Amino acid sequence: MVITSLENERVKKYRKLHEKKYRDRWGMFLVEGEHLVLEAYKAGIIEEVILTNETNCALDVPKVYVTEEIMKKISQLDTPISILALCRKQVQEKNKMGDKLLLIDEVQDPGNLGTILRSAKAFHVDTVVLGSRSVDLYNAKVLRSTQGMLFHLQVIEADLLTIIPELKKKNIPIYGTRVEAGDDVRTLSATAKTKYALVVGNEGNGVSKEVLSLCDQYLYIQMDSSVESLNVAVATSILLYELDRGEK
Amino acid sequence: MVITSLENERVKKYRKLHEKKYRDRWGMFLVEGEHLVLEAYKAGIIEEVILTNETNCALDVPKVYVTEEIMKKISQLDTPISILALCRKQVQEKNKMGDKLLLIDEVQDPGNLGTILRSAKAFHVDTVVLGSRSVDLYNAKVLRSTQGMLFHLQVIEADLLTIIPELKKKNIPIYGTRVEAGDDVRTLSATAKTKYALVVGNEGNGVSKEVLSLCDQYLYIQMDSSVESLNVAVATSILLYELDRGEK
Repeated sequence: MVITSLENERVKKYRKLHEKKYRDRWGMFLVEGEHLVLEAYKAGIIEEVILTNETNCALDVPKVYVTEEIMKKISQLDTPISILALCRKQVQEKNKMGDKLLLIDEVQDPGNLGTILRSAKAFHVDTVVLGSRSVDLYNAKVLRSTQGMLFHLQVIEADLLTIIPELKKKNIPIYGTRVEAGDDVRTLSATAKTKYALVVGNEGNGVSKEVLSLCDQYLYIQMDSSVESLNVAVATSILLYELDRGEK
Repeated sequence: MVITSLENERVKKYRKLHEKKYRDRWGMFLVEGEHLVLEAYKAGIIEEVILTNETNCALDVPKVYVTEEIMKKISQLDTPISILALCRKQVQEKNKMGDKLLLIDEVQDPGNLGTILRSAKAFHVDTVVLGSRSVDLYNAKVLRSTQGMLFHLQVIEADLLTIIPELKKKNIPIYGTRVEAGDDVRTLSATAKTKYALVVGNEGNGVSKEVLSLCDQYLYIQMDSSVESLNVAVATSILLYELDRGEK
């Protein structure tokens, strides 16, 4: 059976998931396109896939068929797609945070957040802590930019002002990022990289003052003095790349 | 005098500049928002600024006033702005390319291209060569993502298949990027970084086969094996960051 009406209860539910409010309330979200659906499948979080009637899908999950018109209304991206999945948020275990952490203070561009998460997985971060004022993790553009890496990464949402003191008790050094002062990340010793919590901040304003004041050390990336700053996803990725290296 | 009509000839001209066709034909483009306008001013490329009547502008350039409604129609970005500038494209001197080059094969996302240009300036690239199938340099989103660094960077538009043989004649090594094979960029000697042409490619498909076949050496970034690739702006920035370093 193919759903043809926007008034269908399932369709209404999917479309409500465009809003963070409902994603939070139901613990559910949508992922769009073949690649992301496959990554969600590997992570075992799919409840059902939503397909147009011409689409083949060999995945062993419940299937819901809709018309192309309905698909366009369920999708939040500009590029037309033929498959979506309804997914359940993973429960993250806060007591297993590991000792390589990335703390995100207030990143607001979905593309930047997604790109950062992809790099966090690439450079062996154990847990990402997403501060309360950042863009929603389950925003369609964030998910697309992660290229599905979100499903293979532990991400916790928490207040950084609460989590940093807990990390300090575990003797994890807190590295802040500031453009104007601190240590060149290249000069960090291998020991200084064995455990860390790297804090990165907002696109325009950087890490907030309260959070910065809790950091143990500040890191910067050496660059041409005429350039004020790098894109936040680029800066974060270079720092994580350096922290992932052993002795120089 | 404040322009209030969309039928005004200047307004019509500004709006035509939303299209690449007219930007190419007239050698002009628009930049949006205070920060970019200031960077364009520093570069000496502003023909006139366009303001809403409440906006102050101390810059020593001709000023055109429009209503807020007209401003919204001239702007191409979602965020409301109160200042734009009409700029003239800079003439780039192909005979002064330097010996640190970034060659962009087919980057299509405006945010990625802008971010790459910003990093190119930060990490001391002399000239960026933009291949013919990339997104237009003067696209509003590209300009915004460069944070104005485009105006302080030499960027040439050319066919990579033509430019690479010219660089080879100057003994500049051509470094391609491939995910699956090549040398870890960390292992490059300081000598191998004194001059270079780094080629980066499309978001989904990487560098095209024809271009790859002209490269002298392939570079990769070491990362977790479960991650297929990094975002193209991130990968490019890390490679440029490494090429900007001296001996390890």
